[in-house]
This record gives sequence, C-alpha cells and structure tokens, in this order.
Amino acid sequence: MPQRLIIDTDPGIDDALAILLTLASSELQLEGLSIVHGNCSMQQGARNARAVLELAGASHIPVFNGCEFPLVQPSLLAPETHGNTGLGYAELPDPVMPVDPRHAVDFLIETVLASPGEITIAAIGPLTNVALAIRKEPRFAPAVKDLFIMGGAVRYDGNTTPLAEFNTYVDPHAAHIVFHSGIPIMLVPLDVTYQCILTPEDVTRLQASPTGIPKFIADSTRFYMEFHDEYQQIAGCVINDPLALALIYRPEICDYEEIFVDVEISGGVAMGKTFGDFYKMTKRSPNMRVALQVRPRDFMELFLERIESLCQAQATAGGSG
Amino acid sequence: MPQRLIIDTDPGIDDALAILLTLASSELQLEGLSIVHGNCSMQQGARNARAVLELAGASHIPVFNGCEFPLVQPSLLAPETHGNTGLGYAELPDPVMPVDPRHAVDFLIETVLASPGEITIAAIGPLTNVALAIRKEPRFAPAVKDLFIMGGAVRYDGNTTPLAEFNTYVDPHAAHIVFHSGIPIMLVPLDVTYQCILTPEDVTRLQASPTGIPKFIADSTRFYMEFHDEYQQIAGCVINDPLALALIYRPEICDYEEIFVDVEISGGVAMGKTFGDFYKMTKRSPNMRVALQVRPRDFMELFLERIESLCQAQATAGGSG
Amino acid sequence: MPQRLIIDTDPGIDDALAILLTLASSELQLEGLSIVHGNCSMQQGARNARAVLELAGASHIPVFNGCEFPLVQPSLLAPETHGNTGLGYAELPDPVMPVDPRHAVDFLIETVLASPGEITIAAIGPLTNVALAIRKEPRFAPAVKDLFIMGGAVRYDGNTTPLAEFNTYVDPHAAHIVFHSGIPIMLVPLDVTYQCILTPEDVTRLQASPTGIPKFIADSTRFYMEFHDEYQQIAGCVINDPLALALIYRPEICDYEEIFVDVEISGGVAMGKTFGDFYKMTKRSPNMRVALQVRPRDFMELFLERIESLCQAQATAGGSG
Amino acid sequence: MPQRLIIDTDPGIDDALAILLTLASSELQLEGLSIVHGNCSMQQGARNARAVLELAGASHIPVFNGCEFPLVQPSLLAPETHGNTGLGYAELPDPVMPVDPRHAVDFLIETVLASPGEITIAAIGPLTNVALAIRKEPRFAPAVKDLFIMGGAVRYDGNTTPLAEFNTYVDPHAAHIVFHSGIPIMLVPLDVTYQCILTPEDVTRLQASPTGIPKFIADSTRFYMEFHDEYQQIAGCVINDPLALALIYRPEICDYEEIFVDVEISGGVAMGKTFGDFYKMTKRSPNMRVALQVRPRDFMELFLERIESLCQAQATAGGSG
Repeated sequence: MPQRLIIDTDPGIDDALAILLTLASSELQLEGLSIVHGNCSMQQGARNARAVLELAGASHIPVFNGCEFPLVQPSLLAPETHGNTGLGYAELPDPVMPVDPRHAVDFLIETVLASPGEITIAAIGPLTNVALAIRKEPRFAPAVKDLFIMGGAVRYDGNTTPLAEFNTYVDPHAAHIVFHSGIPIMLVPLDVTYQCILTPEDVTRLQASPTGIPKFIADSTRFYMEFHDEYQQIAGCVINDPLALALIYRPEICDYEEIFVDVEISGGVAMGKTFGDFYKMTKRSPNMRVALQVRPRDFMELFLERIESLCQAQATAGGSG
Repeated sequence: MPQRLIIDTDPGIDDALAILLTLASSELQLEGLSIVHGNCSMQQGARNARAVLELAGASHIPVFNGCEFPLVQPSLLAPETHGNTGLGYAELPDPVMPVDPRHAVDFLIETVLASPGEITIAAIGPLTNVALAIRKEPRFAPAVKDLFIMGGAVRYDGNTTPLAEFNTYVDPHAAHIVFHSGIPIMLVPLDVTYQCILTPEDVTRLQASPTGIPKFIADSTRFYMEFHDEYQQIAGCVINDPLALALIYRPEICDYEEIFVDVEISGGVAMGKTFGDFYKMTKRSPNMRVALQVRPRDFMELFLERIESLCQAQATAGGSG
Repeated sequence: MPQRLIIDTDPGIDDALAILLTLASSELQLEGLSIVHGNCSMQQGARNARAVLELAGASHIPVFNGCEFPLVQPSLLAPETHGNTGLGYAELPDPVMPVDPRHAVDFLIETVLASPGEITIAAIGPLTNVALAIRKEPRFAPAVKDLFIMGGAVRYDGNTTPLAEFNTYVDPHAAHIVFHSGIPIMLVPLDVTYQCILTPEDVTRLQASPTGIPKFIADSTRFYMEFHDEYQQIAGCVINDPLALALIYRPEICDYEEIFVDVEISGGVAMGKTFGDFYKMTKRSPNMRVALQVRPRDFMELFLERIESLCQAQATAGGSG
Repeated sequence: MPQRLIIDTDPGIDDALAILLTLASSELQLEGLSIVHGNCSMQQGARNARAVLELAGASHIPVFNGCEFPLVQPSLLAPETHGNTGLGYAELPDPVMPVDPRHAVDFLIETVLASPGEITIAAIGPLTNVALAIRKEPRFAPAVKDLFIMGGAVRYDGNTTPLAEFNTYVDPHAAHIVFHSGIPIMLVPLDVTYQCILTPEDVTRLQASPTGIPKFIADSTRFYMEFHDEYQQIAGCVINDPLALALIYRPEICDYEEIFVDVEISGGVAMGKTFGDFYKMTKRSPNMRVALQVRPRDFMELFLERIESLCQAQATAGGSG
C-alpha cells in the first residue's frame, strides 16, 4: 500500500523536482498539493504546481491555494534564487487544470481528520499553512501520521542569514507553532540537503529520456546553478526539497537523531535559527527526528533513476494514448 | 438600518454584559458570535455564549467555535478574574441551542466577503480568530467595514503585567497581525474602559426589572467585584467589553486620536505592551483610532437603561407568548 | 550641614540649568561633575560643564571626563534638541580651568568609598558612568547614600521613541544595571519633569538680574523653546534636569510611590521603556521611589528665586573683588 | 623578543593549565593576570591564580582583582564543571603573595596605553573586564595589539545552552562590546578547543616529571574528567583555554577564516550564540579571525612537552636554590 501524502509547497525549482520525484515514486500516493508563499508568491506557486503536474501528465492531482503571507514577519520571496517565475529559465505552458476551490488549510485539516493516523505531510516551504491548520483545528495535530519538513539548519550555516535557513526564516513563528505541536516530525535540514548536489552531468544524463521533463529540469536548474555558482561556489545545484520526499520510503539514505529542536523568534540577529538540544541541556523531551548524515550519491542515483522511469512511463502511456 | 455586527468574544463576565447590551441595542444587528479562548477555555466560552443568548431569548443568533489556543504563546486563561465557569457566581442552565458547525474563522471570512464593506466586527477577546481570518484569506481585511477592539493599555497601566492588558498579552502575535492588517480599527483600551465602573447601586437598580437577566448580572458581577476589591481596591467592577459595543452607535461617549499603534512581541518584560506614536516619532501612518477619554456615567447610564429596556421587552414578549 | 553631592551629567541645556541651581542651593555641597555622553559628546559636555562653572564663578568644582559611548547600543546624541554645542544659542568663552585627570568612574567610586553613606549622586544623563562604577567596584552601590535619576517615562509618553525617554533609551543596559543595583534610587521621570515649563516670561524676569547668567539662560533656552514649539507645541521649554536637584532638599514639591521599576532591553519596539509595577504583579520588591506628581509652579518659583539669588551673590562677590 | 602578554582569566582548571603553559613558553612574557568572575567567583579565582603562580615559582607575576559580576545578566558560576574551589580535586596551599592593589580594568588600560601596539591580551574567561576597559577608555581598543579570545561556538554545539558557549553565555553583552570594538581579535571557539583532549595517558606521562605541578594537573583534571565522562561521554577532558595561548606563538596548529562574527543578546533561546557570516550575508566587514580547524595532537604534544620542560626547569632552579 503506498503512503498517502500531501505536499505543502512553494514551487520553486526544487519543489518542482520534489513533485516530479513523488509522481515517480510508487511508494507514495499523492493526494494533493497545498500551496504556500515562499520561493515565489502563492499565486505564482499555484500556477507553477499545476504546470508541473500537467507536464508530468498528473493533472488529476488537486492543487489548493493557501496562505499568501507569513504569520507575523513581513513577506520575503526569493526571486534571486528561483527567478521571477519561480521556475528559473523554464517556460511551461499556462496550465489548463483549475485550482481546487477549497483553501489549502481546510484541505489539510479535512483530509487528515477524515483518515486519522494515515496521512503523511511533506512540508517543503514556509510552514504557514501547517501552522494555521494546527491553530484552527486542535484535532489536526494528533491526527497527522507524520510530517516531513524540509527546513532549518541545525549544525549547518544558514542560507538566508548566517544562522537561518530560508523556510524557517521566512515564517519563524509558524515553525515555532509546528515544532511545539506534538506532530511526529522528521526534520530534513540543510545539514543533509546541502550535500545533495545535482551536477551538470546528472542533467545531461537525463536528456536521454523522452518527454518534456528532462528539458524542464535542465532549464529550471540552469538558473539555480548560476545562482549557486555566484553565491556559494558550488558546481551544480543543491536540490533541497526532493530528499524530504525520498526519506519517506527510503529512510536509510540518512542517519538520524531524536532530539528537542526549537527556533528563535525574539527578533534579534538569530531570528529563525533552528537548533537541537543534543545534550539535553534544556531538559525538554525530543520533539522530532532530525536527519544529520546523508549518503548523497545514494539519493542522487535514486532521484535520477526515478525521473528516468517517470519519463519512460509517461512516454509509453502517451504512445498508447 | 441597524449596523450588521459580529462579536468575537471569550465570555467571560463582561463579554456576557456586552452581548446583552448588543441585544438591547436596536442600532446593532447581531449576526453571530465567534468564540475564542481567553477569559475561559473556548469550549466553556461557547457554552456560556449560548446560555446567555438563551437567557435573553436570542437563541436564533448562531454561535461558532473558534481557536482554542494563542498563536505562539502558551495558553493563559483567567479563572481568578472570571471564575471557573467564566461567569462568576452565575449559574445558567445548560443551553439547548447547538453550536453552529462552521468554524468561527470561516464564519468571519464568509460573512465579510459576502457583504464587503458592510460588516462591523467587535473583538472583545484575544485576537486569535481575527488574525487567522486575516492570514487565511487576504481579501478579508480589505472587506471588513470596521473593527472595534477592546484591548490594549496605551497610556494606562496593564492589568496582566505592569505594561500589558490581558487580551493583547494572551496573544500579542495575533494583535500584531491585526494592527498591521489595514483594517479600519477603533481601539478601546483600558485607558477608557477602566473608567467605566458598575457599582453595587447600579446592580441593585437593575433588580427592579423583570426576567432572569438582573439576577444573572448580580451573580456574575458579584464575583468580579470581589476580585476588583481584592486586587485593585475598586468599589464595584470595571466592565471593559460593553463600552466597545456602545461606541459603535454612540461614539460621542469617548474622545479619540488617530495614531499609529503597535505592540511589543520580542519576548522581554514589555511583551504585549501596546503603545501609540502620538508625536509621529516612528514616521508611520496612523493605523487606528484610539479612544482616550470617556464620559463614564454617560456610558453607564446608557448601559443600565438599555438593559432595563431589554428586560422589559423580553418580559412583554414572554407574557404575550 | 549641606548634602554632599556629585552630579553625573551630559551638559546639555537643562543640565547647565541644573548645575546653576545646585550652585545656587546652600543645601547642596557640589563636590564634582562627572561627565557622560548624551545630549552632546562627552568631550563637548566636559567643555560645557567647565564653561558653565566659570560663568557662575565656581571653577573650583572639579570636572571629570567619563564614558564616551553607551555600553552596548550605538551612540546617540541629541543635537536637534540641544544644538551642535549642546548649549543652544549660548556662546560661552572657552574655559580656562582644566579637566581633572581622574576618570569620572573612579572619581565616583573613590569619593563614595571614602565616605560611605554620605554621598548623594544626581545622575541627569545616560547612566553609563554610574553603571560602570557599579560593575567595576561591587562595594560602590552599597556605599552610595542615594541616587537621584532624571530619567524614564513611567506613566508618560517617551520623548525619544513612543515609549522611551532619552536617557534610558540611549543606554538601556546601563539603566538596567543601575535599577537592579540595590542603590536607594529616587526616579524623576518625564511624568513630573514635563510639567515643569520655563516660560518666556520666566526668562524675561531673570534678565533683571546681574551677571552673565541671565543672558546665558536666555540664549540657551531660546534654542530649546524653538525645539519644543516645533515638535511638541509647548510654549516655553521643559527643563527636565533641575527638578532632580531640587528634590534632594525640597522633596515636598513632588508626590511619590515606592515600587519596582524595570527597563526593557530585549531590542524590540519597547527598547528602553521604563515601567512601574504599581500592582505588584511581578512579586518583586520595590527598588526605588518614583516622583509621579509635581507642583510645577512651586518648583519653577524655587528655580527662579535661586537663580536670582545666585546672580545677586555673584555680582556682590565680583563687586567686592 | 617574547610577546608581551596579559591573561584575563577566571581560574578554573583549564585556566590554570593555560597559565602553566604560558609560564612554560619562552615566546611569551606574562606581565600580569587580570581576574574575572566565571568558572568560580572572582575572589576564588584570584586566590587560585596566585596559588598556581606560586606552584610554578612565578610569584613575581602580579595578579589583579577584576569584575565580580556580568554586565547585565545575573551571575552564573560553574561549580559542577570546576568544583567548589574552581580547581577540581587539587588542593594548593593558600598563597603568600598578595593581590596587586590596582583594579584589573585599570591594569589592562594602563599597560596597553603605556605601550600602544605592543600588548597581546589572552581573554579566557567571560569578557567583562575587557569590555569595561573598552568602555571606560576609548583609547584602549585602538592600542591593543591583539586579543586572543577563548570563547564562542561558531559551527559547533554550545556547552552551556544548545547554542551558547559558557564564556559568551555568562556575559553576552560584554562579548558584544568586545566583538564590535575594532580590536584585532583571534577567536578560539569550541570548534577547535573541543578537539583538544587531555587523556588519562597524558596525565600519567606527566607524572614522571618533578615538582608539584604533575600532581596538581592530575588532581585538578581528574574532577574535570569525571564531569566530561558523566555529561559528554568523552574519555579524558577537554582543555579549552591553553590552546588560545599556544596559538599566539604557534599559529600553524589551527586553520582560520577572517569573517564577521556577532553574538545574540536579545534574550531568547539563542541568547549568547556566536556565529560567523561566512557568506557575507550581512554585508559587514570581518571583525576577527576565527580558528576553525585544529591539529589536536600537535597541540597536545606541545602542551605536554612544555609542561615537562617547566617542571624540569623549576626542579633545577629549586635544586640550585
């Protein structure tokens, strides 16, 4: 039985790759995408989500508009990382499929409450939607099976401030709500995602596969690679989000610790810093498992193979259509 | 045409009085009560709201369950002020009317969006529900006609910390969201509400009126008076919330300034402090009108007369029934 | 026996008036001026202090250079309030008397430790010098007789931010150190000083007296009056500092409460806010007496008479010289 | 020419080892020890400093009493790490040499101003003394040659809170002052010191040397080892402070980066966190060099050899005495 799954996302280049990887993973049954502000505006993200679903022939997956702004902090988008459209240099046709009329927060609440203990959520953008679901409906948190969060920098430099990772910095109050909600959390921070680099060779390899997906990956990540080259001197590009999805069914890619993790919200220079209490100095019980070591090429190989299979399957399906 | 109105409330002794005053005011058309945590738990508050509506023969007014917890801060209720039930020594029968199945946040959003520019909201508890409505639906704030907030202590001592008033202290992040939302706000802070004292003589005067309402007011406020006597050496009791309702149709009871108001959320000793920028030191544009002077006996006389009329009308209606 | 006194000061127009009032008060025996940054730079303040002493024929009073910068916050001077020289439009000759070679902090420590329980300090600028004395020498605080602080805005608007008074805002960490030091403190906040207004008529009255002092007061306060007129619509000018000196020997000018007072240092919008725990919400013991009510014309009349006497005495002394 | 040096210290087991290493290093000319609160009270630390100097036959080195309390934070000592006396199980005779009557802060200022650009300071406790010197005398910072700080945890877990190292957590405001002072700083954080472990074998090896020093090291570090064993499962003990001294003349033990480093002082869960802006996100210029990689056995070997030589030299000198 595949794992029932909602992705809460701000697509975003690496969000798009995470969606594609999910569609390529028979272990996961994607039931909807709830969209949130972050890498680009929520409206742009909802457009991108549908365009990517259509690119992969998955327009039956519903997409839900979510929160447009962080809870308390002023809005912060990332056009310098993801481009003005959120998808780098990729140009996808305007999607035909509509957005589902329900609000993302209500979709999350209703889906989870309808099947308590069965739904996994992968939150790969700022946590505003999930935080609102928690506060709107107290029965939500106890009914979530588990929550995979791409976010935070635990023993790793921040990518937005010296201490803070983008998703937690953009809405630290939402992260605080989620971290203290009691939901079983798997945190996938920069500590592991920054080891997972898509190289130009990887992109070239994918071009041998059919469908429009390889070209989309090439066009979107080319922008990303230029950014990483300029700012962080990385050859290739870090793809943060797909790892969180892979860990749902391939946990052995990472090593974990179960610890208490918190986030700074006082407003000073450490705003949005996530940290782990590895030595139980705070006497607080662990509130999540944190991925701290990764076997990056195991993951990259998985990613590439799955994308290749997805392309093949789609070409076959299209050919038979 | 009466003003269409939603009360967002945590009843609460003075909330109950505010509901009664609203029912007694033909200038106001009460369309629902959205319940929030605060003086007592949200569940208890929803029970109290319905019991008070039934006491006043107004069980046609729908009641909506809202948020049970503050956005980020830990929960803080006020049993020492309002008693374990939230209504002091008053004992009302268990209500017969059900809670409406819709969530308070959705009721707020849907009612306001259905009639843009027509709905006034009176928020007399912590601002969690209103803040969630703002963040869930960006079209909400521009469509609210105006928002009367009982909350804050601008040039006045706090009643929960030396600087902070209860409603803003309980959920300062929600107050921050609301204050910066662009909704036209009328703030009714402790500066004016603490001048409005219900005296034992006032309570005695009401006992001459028919129905169960006078006894309810006597029983609920007797607890309140004991609290005020013990902590603040006030003879009688401050009734903070009803004033916010009266100002909707009788603004001349107060004097106002239009200023920029903000709230401290950094987490130090000033947490939850509301303040006004009277001398434009911050260069920010005004975001609300603030009631700063009040003619207390004008208000108290209005309150007493309206309650007397309500009792009379209910007795007449009952007699004819 | 006159009260032995050190003034810690950042002269500053109203500091200059406080020094003159002290010299005019036989109840006070001024043993030195310790200079601190604030209204103007420490160097400029030390120059101004000596120029004012020489103007009043008091060049025997030693002046000590103190701290040039706040403890933690960036430097903040007040040229728009006190003019570029710190003394408005007044032009005093360069002083002949030298600065004492000892550091102000050491002068404070040594003088107090040499006569435990005998020395009163009046701190009418940012509290950096006093805080350093406390932290450098733990025996200092227990040996101070009492400390009169012009600073803070307890139940009053700030004059630098909406919440904070200038002296506490400039160095809130120093204020925090001093407030928690155990020194017996008399706080003289804006609540009372802003009632004490030197009017144009007061200045005119002084011009009938001999010596250069009346013209100095007219020239320095004319700048101040223009500032107050522009920013706060006050006819005349508030003279904050002299009141703190008068209260040492004429306490009946004000009414007081003995309470716990603290200052916000978390760095948010309430940075530097001083507040009183009037209702013992914090369960902390009182740490100071706070002047909360003032009889302003009693003070102004005292001030004017003393300045007139000082002028007369100096003219007589000069005439006999 | 040996490097002229002042050690600002809170001895403390590893402080004692740092003092011994300094005495054993002909590259360094120790001109005094300025004592600060920290591992133990300042009074206890001054006693320990003199006892260690006498143990090593160096009673000619002056010891100066410094600050007893952190600037703003409440006092925090570390008896569970260093024992009630600050020196673990070691029992040294009461020292005969007196404390120098000058204050540590003045000793720092006067020594540095007397030889601008010549004096290196090694600060291996909380930075209160150094911060006070900076604020008391603005000419101090520009005249310091360089400042080696044992403190902070940059890309490493804290040892006092999950994020903060002891010395910076105890007085984060002092660290803030020092970091922003313009003094050329070499930061030696837990990132490198936690790699330098004194093993039981190391201690045994030292016992072959003459004098009382080997037994002192065994007795003091045995307490430390028990602590490290209990709390952090390290065999042996981390000796943080001596490394900072060794780097003055043996910089090749570590690798460095020149970056902007800051410390959180807002008062939340990240209080006292030090961090580096490795990717120039803050646009601030570098304010220090930070040791980030270490060759631990190179250091440990240096340490052991130097201590052995010190013992030998002292025995010889004693034998000839």
